[in-house]
Amino acid sequence: MDKPHITLIGMGLIGSSIGHALKRVDLAAHITGYARSAETREKALNIGFVDSIADSLKGAVADADIVFLNVPVGMIAEIVRDMAPSLKPGAIVTDVGSVKKSVMDAVHEHLTENTTFVPAHPIAGTELSGPEAGFAELFDNRWCILTPDSETDKQAVQTISDLWRAMGSDVEIMDADHHDLVLAITSHVPHLIAFNIVGTAADLEAVTQSEVIKYSAGGFRDFTRIAASDPVMWRDVFMNNGEAVLEMLARFSEDLTSLQRAIRWKDGEALEKLFSRTRDIRRSIIEAGQDTDDVNFGRTESPHKTD
Amino acid sequence: MDKPHITLIGMGLIGSSIGHALKRVDLAAHITGYARSAETREKALNIGFVDSIADSLKGAVADADIVFLNVPVGMIAEIVRDMAPSLKPGAIVTDVGSVKKSVMDAVHEHLTENTTFVPAHPIAGTELSGPEAGFAELFDNRWCILTPDSETDKQAVQTISDLWRAMGSDVEIMDADHHDLVLAITSHVPHLIAFNIVGTAADLEAVTQSEVIKYSAGGFRDFTRIAASDPVMWRDVFMNNGEAVLEMLARFSEDLTSLQRAIRWKDGEALEKLFSRTRDIRRSIIEAGQDTDDVNFGRTESPHKTD
Repeated sequence: MDKPHITLIGMGLIGSSIGHALKRVDLAAHITGYARSAETREKALNIGFVDSIADSLKGAVADADIVFLNVPVGMIAEIVRDMAPSLKPGAIVTDVGSVKKSVMDAVHEHLTENTTFVPAHPIAGTELSGPEAGFAELFDNRWCILTPDSETDKQAVQTISDLWRAMGSDVEIMDADHHDLVLAITSHVPHLIAFNIVGTAADLEAVTQSEVIKYSAGGFRDFTRIAASDPVMWRDVFMNNGEAVLEMLARFSEDLTSLQRAIRWKDGEALEKLFSRTRDIRRSIIEAGQDTDDVNFGRTESPHKTD
Repeated sequence: MDKPHITLIGMGLIGSSIGHALKRVDLAAHITGYARSAETREKALNIGFVDSIADSLKGAVADADIVFLNVPVGMIAEIVRDMAPSLKPGAIVTDVGSVKKSVMDAVHEHLTENTTFVPAHPIAGTELSGPEAGFAELFDNRWCILTPDSETDKQAVQTISDLWRAMGSDVEIMDADHHDLVLAITSHVPHLIAFNIVGTAADLEAVTQSEVIKYSAGGFRDFTRIAASDPVMWRDVFMNNGEAVLEMLARFSEDLTSLQRAIRWKDGEALEKLFSRTRDIRRSIIEAGQDTDDVNFGRTESPHKTD
C-alpha cells in the first residue's frame, strides 16, 4: 500500500514514541494525533511527532488507514465502540496493550465487518509518562509481540509487522493466552512485587520513610524506579490478566516461603544454591541485547567478594 | 595522626574501590593488600590500588594502623581471630559488612585489649564483583553508616569517619540493631525477592527460559541485575540478619496477599491506590541524590498513559 494515513489515539510515552519512530523513517503520509486532554494534544503538536491533531475521536479516525490505540487496556473497548462507526472501510486498528486476550475479546465485540484488528504489544518503555517522555529509539532492538487469531486478516498482520520492524523492533507472532502468561512472569508480577515492597516500606513504624529514602541505594531504589510506572495502566493490567498473574504469583510465594524457611533454619547451602543460579540468566539477557552491564554507580548493595 | 598505613583484607568490588578512593585523595602512607587467592593479589598489584601485597594475613596486618575487612560477614570472625595477635597496639580494625550486630559480637570475642573495632557499612555497590570491578567514585555521595557501641573508642570512630568522608561518603552514626532493621527493608528483602523471582521464572514449564530472557525488558531484567550480586556475600547476609529479614518479609507477604486478593476480586480502586502512592517516594529518592531519573532505554514495562 502507499504511505498510510496513521492516527495515534493516546499520546503518552508509547504513543509519542510511535510518532517519533514513524517520522524517523518517514513512513506515514500523515500522522493525526488524538488525546482526551487538550493540553496533551497541544503539546503533541508543538513537539511535532504528529502532523495534526483532532479534537474528537471520530474526527481523528475518519481518514485513517491505520489507527494505533495507545491507551490503558481498560479503555480500549470503549474507544473502539465509539470510533468504529467512523472508521474507513478496510482500516486497520492495532494496539500496544500489555494484556492481549481480554483486549481481543473486547475489540471484536465492537469492531465492524470491514475493518481489522491486529493485537500488538511492544515490550519497551521507561518509568516516565506523558507526551514529552517519548523518543524515536524506544523500540530499537526490542520485541513487539503480535497475537492475531485465525480470523485476523493476514495482509493486515503483515502491514503492522512491517511498521514495527521499520520502527526498529523485532516482531514475534504468539498466541494471545501464551503472551499473557509470558508477560505475567516477565513483567506483571515483577511490577506487582515492586509496587508492593515500596508500599510495605512506606508503612513501617520502626523505620522512617526518610531512612528508607536516604539508604535506598542498597537496592530498594531500583524497585521504586519500576514502581513509578503509570498507576492506571497497571491497574488495568491486573484487572485484565488476573488469572495468569495469580498463577505466577502463587509460584513466587511458594518459592519465597521456602526461602523464608531456609533463613529461619539457617540453611546456608540452600540460599547459596539459589543465589548462584541467577547469574547465568543475567548473562543471557545481556548477550540477548536486552540489557547492558554498564556500571550504574551504587546500583545495588555491594556484592563484595572475599577474593 | 600522620598518614596511616592502611591494610585491605579482601580486594573485591568494595576493597578495590577503597584502594582507588584512598589513592585519589592520597590519604595513606602505604596501602597493603591481602586476599586469599594469589591471583587476586597479583591483579590488585597490577591494577595499582595497593602499594604492596602480603602473602599472609599476619604479614598483611603487622604494620597496619588501620585494617579494612572487605569480606563476606561470615568470614570476619575467623579473620579477626587469626590476625588479632599480629596487630600493632592501637591499631584500628574496621569493616564494610551489610550486617552489623552479629559482626560486632563476633569481633569483640576475638579482638585484643589495645585495639579498636569500628563497625562500618558503606551503602554503595554494583552487581559486579572482583578486583577489576572497583573504582574511586563508588562511594561519592553515598552514605556510610557507622555503628559503634558505648565501648568504642571515640577517637577511632572519628578517624574512620574522616576517612569515609575523604573517600566521598556522607557518614551517619546509628545503633547496630537499627542499622540491621533499616537495611533489611532497604536492601536485604529487595535482594531476596529479586533472587526469588529469577528462580521462580527459571523453574516454569509453561514459559521457557529463552522466552523469559527474550522478553525480559518488560521489567524482569531489572531484577536479574540485582540477583546477579555475589551469592556468598548474600548467603552470609541472610545467615546473619535472619530475624530482621523475617520480620520485614512477613509484612511484605502480608501486603502481597492483600494485593493478590484485590486482583482476584477485581478491586481496581485498591490497586490504583497503592500504585499511586509509590511515585512520591521515587521522587524523594531522586531529590535526595540517591538515584538519577535518566531514561534507560526499555528500562521498565511501558507506562503509557491515556493522555
